[in-house]
Amino acid sequence: LPVTRTELKKVKSLQTKKGRRTHGLFPAEGIRLLEEACRFEVWPDRLYCAASLLTDRGQRLTERFQEAGVDIAEVSSADLTRMAATESSQGLLAVFPVLSVDPSKLKPDPDRNILVCEKLSDPGNVGTLLRSALAFGFDTVLMCEHSAEPFSPKVVRASMGAVFGLTIAVTSSETALAILEQQGIPLLAAAPSGNVPINQALSGLKRGPVAVAVGSEADGLSPRLLDRAFRVVTIRHRQIVESLNSAVAGAILMKECYDSFSRRKK
Amino acid sequence: LPVTRTELKKVKSLQTKKGRRTHGLFPAEGIRLLEEACRFEVWPDRLYCAASLLTDRGQRLTERFQEAGVDIAEVSSADLTRMAATESSQGLLAVFPVLSVDPSKLKPDPDRNILVCEKLSDPGNVGTLLRSALAFGFDTVLMCEHSAEPFSPKVVRASMGAVFGLTIAVTSSETALAILEQQGIPLLAAAPSGNVPINQALSGLKRGPVAVAVGSEADGLSPRLLDRAFRVVTIRHRQIVESLNSAVAGAILMKECYDSFSRRKK
Repeated sequence: LPVTRTELKKVKSLQTKKGRRTHGLFPAEGIRLLEEACRFEVWPDRLYCAASLLTDRGQRLTERFQEAGVDIAEVSSADLTRMAATESSQGLLAVFPVLSVDPSKLKPDPDRNILVCEKLSDPGNVGTLLRSALAFGFDTVLMCEHSAEPFSPKVVRASMGAVFGLTIAVTSSETALAILEQQGIPLLAAAPSGNVPINQALSGLKRGPVAVAVGSEADGLSPRLLDRAFRVVTIRHRQIVESLNSAVAGAILMKECYDSFSRRKK
Repeated sequence: LPVTRTELKKVKSLQTKKGRRTHGLFPAEGIRLLEEACRFEVWPDRLYCAASLLTDRGQRLTERFQEAGVDIAEVSSADLTRMAATESSQGLLAVFPVLSVDPSKLKPDPDRNILVCEKLSDPGNVGTLLRSALAFGFDTVLMCEHSAEPFSPKVVRASMGAVFGLTIAVTSSETALAILEQQGIPLLAAAPSGNVPINQALSGLKRGPVAVAVGSEADGLSPRLLDRAFRVVTIRHRQIVESLNSAVAGAILMKECYDSFSRRKK
């Protein structure tokens, strides 16, 4: 089916928050990201491809989408550029239904740790956190209190496609706490002022899922989360630096959990 | 002294790589960054301030620069905006001599670990690495093979001012290796394909300075660095994710070194 002006305009609007909200869709561009979608078997509503821009690798990827039954639309390179955010979309842009899940539908799973992000507004940091979350077994992510939109192009790009492998819910801190309490999952809250080193906090825990909460660098976590955390943990570093970057702090904490639980599994 | 058009143009040119190279200067804007410069007693050639934009905190900071004998120029808010990269320069912009040191002048110091960055082009990642380096006692940083310019505005901002507390040399990987070998500092090279977990590599080391090398996510470290490393180390994570973000990987490795050496110091 040829792509109408209306459709082109709609896809272009997905570069904006308003457009994504209106249509419940988000765009992803380029070979790397779309290969990840394929690997996690997350299929777009439609794949737009400009044949003249495709490399062999892009061609093979298009075929995989085709085999999976994805609707593919050929467009001119000019039209693709009009829809895309970056100049090098590598001839491919796909439109996915927003993947956020309803927090009330999250099922307990002993193998899934949970990352809680509160008021994390920087899309680069959020994307990097999502990538680390997938690497260290934090497969469920709760995005709370106006954190960056997890399916915005910047976050998706910085996540290097990890968004396709995670279960992500957008919710409030209150609901996040209720879910953790209901499922009996202990919360480790990160704070520069925390009084328990992370490994010490972990040694007091049984094997089983754990949640890590990371807040904004400017404000830290809310009193609500800090008060109801199992432990407020900290990462030891020289006091010459006031705090760590939140994506770095989150990754270090998740890595410690990953190491600690793997050791005990053996 | 009033600020001439020529000076205004010169300061504005420092937003570009060419301008910084021509003048051997770099700009830093905003209260947070300039407070860090002050704290590390790194003084600019000149501080430009637009009185009408200053908060009390900005006013106090200006006074501290004045007490330190820094040359201060009052400018209109329009002129400051013309010189600045961001709209919210908070009424303050200072111009510093580029702080890179000559690699041949680096002195061995048993308390200073060394971070080696190779081909790290993303300024956000480089800035975040510099911030983590300062936090974990990697006070000397060797920027090799066309890594992002350490005193570009984006790196300075992402470092949250850590650039003012570090010793940074821009050099080649070959020179970096020569320095490490001459000073007898073992190099831990990070690679997804590394065969030694970081803690195991560290347990084989005496207390004393250590170097950690981080390469680009696309290409990894050069064979040159990998071949001559004491150990090629890796960070265990799920294979579902191909690799970690380089700023995250670097931070985790530096943190492990910091923890390991602090434990033994006790």
